[in-house]
Amino acid sequence: MMTQPSLNSLHVAIIGMGLMGASLGYDLRGRVRRVTGVVRRPEAVAATEASGCVDEATVDARAAAAEADLVVLATPVRTILRQIEELGPLMQPGAVLIDMGSTKTAICRAMAALPEHVQPVGGHPMCGKEVAGLEAAEPGLYRGCTFVLCPLPRTASQALELAQALVAHIHARPLILDPERHDQLVAAISHLPYLSASALVAHVMSVAEEDERVWEVAASGFRDASRVAASDVRMMLDILLTNSSAVMNALDDFADQIAGLRRALAAGDEALLTRQLEAIARARRNWGKNRQTH
Amino acid sequence: MMTQPSLNSLHVAIIGMGLMGASLGYDLRGRVRRVTGVVRRPEAVAATEASGCVDEATVDARAAAAEADLVVLATPVRTILRQIEELGPLMQPGAVLIDMGSTKTAICRAMAALPEHVQPVGGHPMCGKEVAGLEAAEPGLYRGCTFVLCPLPRTASQALELAQALVAHIHARPLILDPERHDQLVAAISHLPYLSASALVAHVMSVAEEDERVWEVAASGFRDASRVAASDVRMMLDILLTNSSAVMNALDDFADQIAGLRRALAAGDEALLTRQLEAIARARRNWGKNRQTH
Repeated sequence: MMTQPSLNSLHVAIIGMGLMGASLGYDLRGRVRRVTGVVRRPEAVAATEASGCVDEATVDARAAAAEADLVVLATPVRTILRQIEELGPLMQPGAVLIDMGSTKTAICRAMAALPEHVQPVGGHPMCGKEVAGLEAAEPGLYRGCTFVLCPLPRTASQALELAQALVAHIHARPLILDPERHDQLVAAISHLPYLSASALVAHVMSVAEEDERVWEVAASGFRDASRVAASDVRMMLDILLTNSSAVMNALDDFADQIAGLRRALAAGDEALLTRQLEAIARARRNWGKNRQTH
Repeated sequence: MMTQPSLNSLHVAIIGMGLMGASLGYDLRGRVRRVTGVVRRPEAVAATEASGCVDEATVDARAAAAEADLVVLATPVRTILRQIEELGPLMQPGAVLIDMGSTKTAICRAMAALPEHVQPVGGHPMCGKEVAGLEAAEPGLYRGCTFVLCPLPRTASQALELAQALVAHIHARPLILDPERHDQLVAAISHLPYLSASALVAHVMSVAEEDERVWEVAASGFRDASRVAASDVRMMLDILLTNSSAVMNALDDFADQIAGLRRALAAGDEALLTRQLEAIARARRNWGKNRQTH
């Protein structure tokens, strides 16, 4: 067992050098003993090292995981599921395994099956950008964002403390949640918005079949409401398919909300619409205000 | 009849000194003979004149409309409907009446009932900001945005040319549409996004009743997808209630799109989801790209 872990003595292996992994690398390099970045394609090794976000880049995930004190999985969710199984058992006794995947139930279940000598902690930083990849990565990406941590019942307190030290180091705000609750909450605020944005674009596509000038009149309202529909589909499918029951519940309630608004509109019930839409507008404005003070 | 109208000789009356009206004032003042801004509250006269967006401000809409060569209605849709009826008949022979309301069928129908001596043109600039009011107004607001014009069958060509000169002057892109088609297109790209954003917030509110930390995990995806739900409810109700049949059609297709995505997710049909979501993501990215080149 590692005793009193502090970040600066750690060898950190980050698996996956996309936006999230590389941004974490920028924040850690020079502040920890060593940052190893694992990439998938041999051609990416040189560019990753040249970017300055790691001390060294490699395609050898197994060797990197075997050497590190802290392994961070920064790949799509179903890749994380495979890597937990493949890399976890190779890790050193007491080494800590954190992931940054967007759903947590399936991942924490896979972590629970790891050999006892590994210390797993589920993680999910609630930030991102429209653009992905090493080129979009930047120091300070995590500053001010909520970083969910899901310790397992088996997770030692010092492993959780290490995860919390990592979150503090990158100036994120830790929030401990159990995996099922996490998945229910993110279904509401992330997975449902992705699907509703996608359905919005699908509707405009169907209108465009009749009159393509619809794209010309689309302005900032459509731009913002539909932005996440341009997300990477492979990444989103990993998320949706590992959280489908929470997502379907969210879709069902959302469909009810849409149907309720339609009924009030069909009835021309202005008083009801006013009451409902004012309450919604107030809740949205309050959230926006509180969020800026964080 | 006015002959060969050119902007610089005009006395323009703008009714309503909110974001749209006051921004138009900034762009016109000093470039036309006179800009009169009509406000609702006597207390607003001094602030409007101090802002510099008009040559003079007044609460007397009837006098302003009677004196102007060009009257621009920049109020909420149902106020515009009343003002067409109240102010239109007072206008000078050959004077042009333009509105900036967000729905066009009801407005153009009201314009069609005006006395013959008035020249009406429906208008809708497709721009806006989260914030409303005189304080949010700015020169250049309309630059680059699509400005829909709906001439009536009775509209003289020189009245339409004046409207087009106005659009060109503020560096917007004119798009001539018939009112019903306009309303169908904006139902898709503006009114539906408002209702879907509202339903999204309503869902999060219902999740928050059980666990209010849902607000804490909400990040940029939720922020953008829900932004328009914070719009001014009175303004939006004017829009929804004067365009309810197109909005309900849009809601129905949207509900079908949501149901289709849910079915594919329930079936775990990854191939179908990939195909649909990739086509949607591609359409959204293409729109974003084309839009930047305008």
